[in-house]
Amino acid sequence: MSLRTLKLVVEYDGTDFAGWQVQGGQRTVQGALQEAVEAMTRVATPVRGASRTDAGVHALGQVAAFDTKGEISPRSFLRGLNRYLPDDVVVHEVEEMAPGWDPKRSARGKRYRYVYWTRPSPSALDRHRAWHLPYALDLGAMRAAAEAFLGTHDFEAFRASGCVAKHAHRTIYEARLEEAGPHRLHFVVVGNAFVRNMVRIMAGTLGEVGRGKRDSSGVASALQSRRREEAGRTAPARGLFLEEVVHDDRLPARPADDVDWRGR
Amino acid sequence: MSLRTLKLVVEYDGTDFAGWQVQGGQRTVQGALQEAVEAMTRVATPVRGASRTDAGVHALGQVAAFDTKGEISPRSFLRGLNRYLPDDVVVHEVEEMAPGWDPKRSARGKRYRYVYWTRPSPSALDRHRAWHLPYALDLGAMRAAAEAFLGTHDFEAFRASGCVAKHAHRTIYEARLEEAGPHRLHFVVVGNAFVRNMVRIMAGTLGEVGRGKRDSSGVASALQSRRREEAGRTAPARGLFLEEVVHDDRLPARPADDVDWRGR
Repeated sequence: MSLRTLKLVVEYDGTDFAGWQVQGGQRTVQGALQEAVEAMTRVATPVRGASRTDAGVHALGQVAAFDTKGEISPRSFLRGLNRYLPDDVVVHEVEEMAPGWDPKRSARGKRYRYVYWTRPSPSALDRHRAWHLPYALDLGAMRAAAEAFLGTHDFEAFRASGCVAKHAHRTIYEARLEEAGPHRLHFVVVGNAFVRNMVRIMAGTLGEVGRGKRDSSGVASALQSRRREEAGRTAPARGLFLEEVVHDDRLPARPADDVDWRGR
Repeated sequence: MSLRTLKLVVEYDGTDFAGWQVQGGQRTVQGALQEAVEAMTRVATPVRGASRTDAGVHALGQVAAFDTKGEISPRSFLRGLNRYLPDDVVVHEVEEMAPGWDPKRSARGKRYRYVYWTRPSPSALDRHRAWHLPYALDLGAMRAAAEAFLGTHDFEAFRASGCVAKHAHRTIYEARLEEAGPHRLHFVVVGNAFVRNMVRIMAGTLGEVGRGKRDSSGVASALQSRRREEAGRTAPARGLFLEEVVHDDRLPARPADDVDWRGR
């Protein structure tokens, strides 16, 4: 039978994973998916993801894909994979794609959500899914600062060392703060692609603006500096959620010469 | 020094607890709080709760109280207790009350939230904090059914065996369904008091109405029957959150002759 490519939409609780990417001996989301696919197909099968999330980062809509020569239907994969997967990873959708389809190369963008918990005391229920920043954050200043992310910039200052992307030019379509409850603030960001730790450095920098440790013009000046030390700290992984990978025309197509899809 | 009584507002993730109440050898929320108070005061101290939540039930605003002869300030208790408590229990408020104040007897009512997850596939992130009911629930029918809970009724049919309350007459002030996301439905209920498993049996019965296994008039007929087998199944503990215990005049005072505060 000829090669088929199947797309997966995947949710996971990142708490007990060493991140997305397979690393020898560690519990990873990619590894869990590969084992589940192999259990069903009896063939060792690489699963490629749209985004390499760090240890502790959660996903509501990670997108992945794998190739198979078998005849198992998308519907059977949906049910079967969830039977083999541990309960902190769930496949929500399985779709037949053009053979060889790649979830990262074909992605037009991603939406992330970062959760701040601002009560003086920590959160018990969200201890693994929010950053405890026990301060009265200045929402107006954070909103003003977040606006500076919009558009196309060189995000060199918002990039962790070890990032393999060729450059840090990225386009941000949305960057907004949402009050999600009396002690809960969300930073939602949509961009065409992200360099390593970019959202967490954005969230950490906005946290410093909210606390008054940094002026709201500090985002723009950090961007201009292109120096990592001019941006804020990297916010903890546990507050970060990959909400969606966008492949359709809600976002513009990336230019044909944009081969720098090796970022995060 | 004379006796003081301190009120606590407590959040917990019920997943890894055998419920609120101390039971020999088990990990309980009451036990964790008593150990933390003892660590601070050097005196074994009973902590009394407003509500005995079951194993797996969560709380955002459980209320508890304890008596002490020591001089530690509320502010110091707030910080100190959170240092001694495990990270799945957090004290958010500590307040000095009249000596002997009891959080259960003085409660005017409680608000609970029950979370249904309705996507065909389960939730990874909320696997311990929602009931997976993978059906297109009929929200209109559930809303009509929930209205029958409003007012004062004999909730005998919505009471688990082993309940020690003298009778099951309870008053429901609010009973509403909220769409909380594309695959998420909440049942919010406010009442003066609840018999054992009452909210979970209400949530289970509404789930059956939503699936069409039971007519929306089924709530009223179950109430009238006073027979447990006429109500629905007990919904799983993990979907239930004790959101708030109300002690102020947002709810009416309970009658002076209402001594049946030994329910849940």
